[in-house]
This record gives sequence, structure tokens and C-alpha cells, in this order.
Amino acid sequence: MSHLTASVEYGLHCLLGLLDAGTQPRSSRDLAEFQGVSPTFVAKIFAKLEKAGIVVAAEGVRGGYRLARAPETITVLELVDAIEGRKPLFDCQEIRGRCALFDEGVPEWATRGVCSIHAVMLKAEKAMRDALASETLADIGGRLDRKAPAGFGADTKAWFDRRIAERRSGSQAHRKDLTS
Amino acid sequence: MSHLTASVEYGLHCLLGLLDAGTQPRSSRDLAEFQGVSPTFVAKIFAKLEKAGIVVAAEGVRGGYRLARAPETITVLELVDAIEGRKPLFDCQEIRGRCALFDEGVPEWATRGVCSIHAVMLKAEKAMRDALASETLADIGGRLDRKAPAGFGADTKAWFDRRIAERRSGSQAHRKDLTS
Repeated sequence: MSHLTASVEYGLHCLLGLLDAGTQPRSSRDLAEFQGVSPTFVAKIFAKLEKAGIVVAAEGVRGGYRLARAPETITVLELVDAIEGRKPLFDCQEIRGRCALFDEGVPEWATRGVCSIHAVMLKAEKAMRDALASETLADIGGRLDRKAPAGFGADTKAWFDRRIAERRSGSQAHRKDLTS
Repeated sequence: MSHLTASVEYGLHCLLGLLDAGTQPRSSRDLAEFQGVSPTFVAKIFAKLEKAGIVVAAEGVRGGYRLARAPETITVLELVDAIEGRKPLFDCQEIRGRCALFDEGVPEWATRGVCSIHAVMLKAEKAMRDALASETLADIGGRLDRKAPAGFGADTKAWFDRRIAERRSGSQAHRKDLTS
């Protein structure tokens, strides 16, 4: 098992599907199905991303999500924290104060400052978080764009447009049924 | 909940109790009771540390564990891996190959090299592991020594010696019982 769950992987992959959407919202269902992952799972992830102010929701048949901010300002660290919650590397229980020699009370020196073991873990956690903060959603999208062939962006856009058109015509048919 | 479990905290604190033991082994029970944590829990951790070649076990009444190597050569990274198992930060399921546009087969470019999202996670994981590898058991022990008052080392040694003496006299009494 890994430290980060599949939610981070699914969330980040699906968010990449918003990069070329412009002002047109895309539903979490379409983003999930485009990526080949569970729509129910992705719906829960996008609710967290909305709560964290990373995406905004638009209602209606043409509704869905769009990025709340420029992807250059959205760091991978923010995404991980939004999806997983802020989870520390190490949870110091301050057991340094439990030494058998301290049966008459914990001396001041023993719990002064940060525990030496905790300090090492905090340093390692900072290194990891700094690395995640140094990359943005736009950086990842840019790398993907450089890899994909020329037609991939247009094919992607056409796929999402078709889904929206299908939903709209389905909805119009449904409305006709209701009024006929 | 944190990424690393309490086993790491207990294991590292108890290992510090071997730093001033010299060639005299100390039992995982004594190390746990000195630190005020569960001896059963610590016994399991020390079995893992022995398997990883960090401590060696000595049998008998005066038995227990001692460090297998100089503490300057034992990194915190090794300790974490020995206790927790090597757990990746991120488990890439290669979902980039599942894109809805690839229904006629995954194109070569789509899975070439490392996934862009996985690459960011690997960078962050490396930063964390490098930080853990840059600190040794001796570094942590040194910081603790500089904090503790002059008499603490002697008090610690006396505590462990008393435990060994108690165990030995208990064992001699038991032997007398058996032979009388």
C-alpha cells in the first residue's frame, strides 16, 4: 500500500481534463468516463476539490465543473491536501516524557523544544511538501501536451462536446415527452 | 492519522537506549519499560530491526539486543524502511492508458516514459527519503546528549544494570529452587 490513495491519482488525472475546457464546464461523470475510472468515486473527489476552492460548480444540463483559478496557481501540494486531507508524515506522541527515570515528574529539559526524532520527520515532511508545492497542474498538463500528437486536443474537445450534445438532446426529448 | 505509524516512534526511541550500552546487550523489554511503552509492541519492532541487520540478538539471562553497526552508519531512512516496510508515496495504476479515446488500443505515446503525475510524486518521495537518509541514529543521540544534564547517562546505565542484576538474581533463586 502507498501513503497516498488512488483518490489522488484519479483526481489529478480528471482535473487534467479541465485544462482545455475554457469556460465550458465539464461534469465529473464525463471527466471520469473520459479517464476510464469510477464516476461515483470521482464525484466525491470533485466535491472535495470544490470545497477547497480549486474547482467551481455550474448547475444545469450544460453544468459541471471548471477550474476556479489559473492552473499555473494550483500546486500539486494543494491538490493532495484537498483530496487526502492534511495528513502529517509522523504523529509525535511525546513519549520522550515517559522515561522510567522520570517517576518523580518530567524534568523541563526532557521536553524542551521539538523531540529530536520528530524534528527529523518534520524536515523530511517539509522536503516532500516543498517538492509537491514546486509543481502545478499547468506543469503536468504542459508535459502531457508535449507528449500527445497534434490531433489529441481536438479529439478530446470533440469527445466532451459530443457528451454535452447527447445530454442536451436527451434532455430536450425528455422535455418533449413531458409536454406532449 | 499520520503516514508513519507509532512503531517508528517506539522503535527509534527504544534504539536510542542502545547507544550507551557498549557490548552489553539490553532486552527489548527493558528498552520498552525504560521508555514507558508496550514491551509486546517493542518486541515485534526489534524482531524487524534484527531481520534488517540493524541490531543483533544475544541469548541468555544477560541476553538482549545490541547495535549491529556503528550508529553513525544507521540512517533514519533504513530504520523507517525496516520498521514500516518500504512503502511508496504513490501507487501509480497507469490509468493514463484508460482514456476513452483509446478504444482501439492504447497508442505508444500515451504510456511512454513515466506518467507525468507519477513523476511529480517520485520527485517528492525522493526528497523525503533523501532527508531521512541524511540523518543517522548517532545524530539523534548526539542531540539528545547535548540536551540531557551530566548525570543522565550514568542514571540510565545504572537503571539498565539494576534490571540485569535483578533478572540474574531471580534466575539464581529459581535455579536454587530447582536444585534444593
